[in-house]
Amino acid sequence: MEKAVFDARYEVYRQAVEEYLNGQFTEQTDWSDLYDSMRYSLLAGGKRIRPVLTLEFARIAGAGEDWRSALPAACALELVHTYSLIHDDLPCMDDDDLRRGKPTNHKVYGETMAVLAGDALQPAAYERILTAPGISEGGRLECALLLARASGPDGMVAGQVLDTLHAPKTGDELHQVHRLKTSAMISAACAMGCAAFGAGPELRTAAEEYAQQIGIAFQIRDDMLDVIGDEATFGKPIGSDKEEGKVTFADLLGIEGCEQAVRECTEKAVAAIAPYDADGFLTFFAERLASRMK
Amino acid sequence: MEKAVFDARYEVYRQAVEEYLNGQFTEQTDWSDLYDSMRYSLLAGGKRIRPVLTLEFARIAGAGEDWRSALPAACALELVHTYSLIHDDLPCMDDDDLRRGKPTNHKVYGETMAVLAGDALQPAAYERILTAPGISEGGRLECALLLARASGPDGMVAGQVLDTLHAPKTGDELHQVHRLKTSAMISAACAMGCAAFGAGPELRTAAEEYAQQIGIAFQIRDDMLDVIGDEATFGKPIGSDKEEGKVTFADLLGIEGCEQAVRECTEKAVAAIAPYDADGFLTFFAERLASRMK
Repeated sequence: MEKAVFDARYEVYRQAVEEYLNGQFTEQTDWSDLYDSMRYSLLAGGKRIRPVLTLEFARIAGAGEDWRSALPAACALELVHTYSLIHDDLPCMDDDDLRRGKPTNHKVYGETMAVLAGDALQPAAYERILTAPGISEGGRLECALLLARASGPDGMVAGQVLDTLHAPKTGDELHQVHRLKTSAMISAACAMGCAAFGAGPELRTAAEEYAQQIGIAFQIRDDMLDVIGDEATFGKPIGSDKEEGKVTFADLLGIEGCEQAVRECTEKAVAAIAPYDADGFLTFFAERLASRMK
Repeated sequence: MEKAVFDARYEVYRQAVEEYLNGQFTEQTDWSDLYDSMRYSLLAGGKRIRPVLTLEFARIAGAGEDWRSALPAACALELVHTYSLIHDDLPCMDDDDLRRGKPTNHKVYGETMAVLAGDALQPAAYERILTAPGISEGGRLECALLLARASGPDGMVAGQVLDTLHAPKTGDELHQVHRLKTSAMISAACAMGCAAFGAGPELRTAAEEYAQQIGIAFQIRDDMLDVIGDEATFGKPIGSDKEEGKVTFADLLGIEGCEQAVRECTEKAVAAIAPYDADGFLTFFAERLASRMK
């Protein structure tokens, strides 16, 4: 696949996601301030990696050009991802004032509203999956369950607990945190595209391997970029500003080791999905994630 | 129905709920502290009003003596109710140190964990509904959707926003808060029992009217008990310790007016459900709520 073709399809997916999200929580109600707070974070941009994966896997699994039928499921992932960002930024969590260059939700709407906006995004996500008109009853049920498992007490929230309250120190602990906190939701994104359109077991297995590998690569690249970004921008030595006692892949593997690991994971991801990735979109997607600069 | 018969059945339901909840989040994991925090609030007692309603409506709707099949759906309501209590007690919300005489979740586990325990209880609730072995695929889908709508940005969370951030002042505003914050979940409880076992439209309509009326009666009784409790315990005059600008039904109707309203709502509830309440359990249930002292 050529870069221009990849970019064009990614952009079509991304715009479909933006349009869908932009159509949510627009009614006039007596609690429109809640809607405003939800929309503020939901429409704050981002690469929309998870929903794009769902849409591409829906296409492959059988939706074809009808991939828009998977939008409610794809965007439900983004609702849940957004709630997790709002709550992660709270003073009692990471206490961040900025996200993607904009004030965090609680800085704009206050802590009370930020907690409630996050709380409301979760059921809103399930409602959208469960009423998706273009997905079969069984498909909706499976998508909702995939989301619940990925984001629950044995998925994303467990990862957040380990990351925030346990401070991982070894490579194994770090892998566990990111498997739960990041890869689980990326796996759900791929699996939901498959489930929504009744993919067979071989595609599902390939999607799972692909998702696991790009999930690890994504996180290692993230840790690398923290260091590279710091060095480029501030000229700080590697790891000088990392939080006390918090270990990253950059600490454990070094920058070259990280590059190597990202390359290996990406190769495994690409190999796993090759039989289904006829036009190369998912290969390009994995390589783009592996080489991204932000 | 005799009091002893009612009490015995209520106790069977309540114990089944306690046993089910007690079996949740017990595995040994690296994030068992998250499980502990969830279990602490989940097992803190309470009347289990919502799951008991689900179980009785499941019985009426066709489950009969197989009402235990509805336990995952019934208890999912309790998971969501519990998350809402944990988050309501947070410093940025009502800032409560005690609930039912025990320290609140964040007082025991810290604010970070309390936010996360609440966050994890939501997907855990959907997981339980969506995998309930004794409920049909369509029934599971409908139960999950009922829960999502009742607890989401046009249900419980909207009510919490209005109550916490808008300070209702008129009778209409107060009714709106409680319709969203309390009645929506009570309605979902009754509707989920119906949905889990394919109740017909007449029973569903009767269940909805019953739920709406006991929901209002419940809340008015709550406001009354705040006043009566205060007077009995502290000898304070009516309404002396209510929060600035926050109006209650006791302010709007007076104690006698509240008693009258509770009686009327209870009568309407009982009349609505009479054709289906052959043995009188739901009649007794409504009357018990209306006359409760705590």
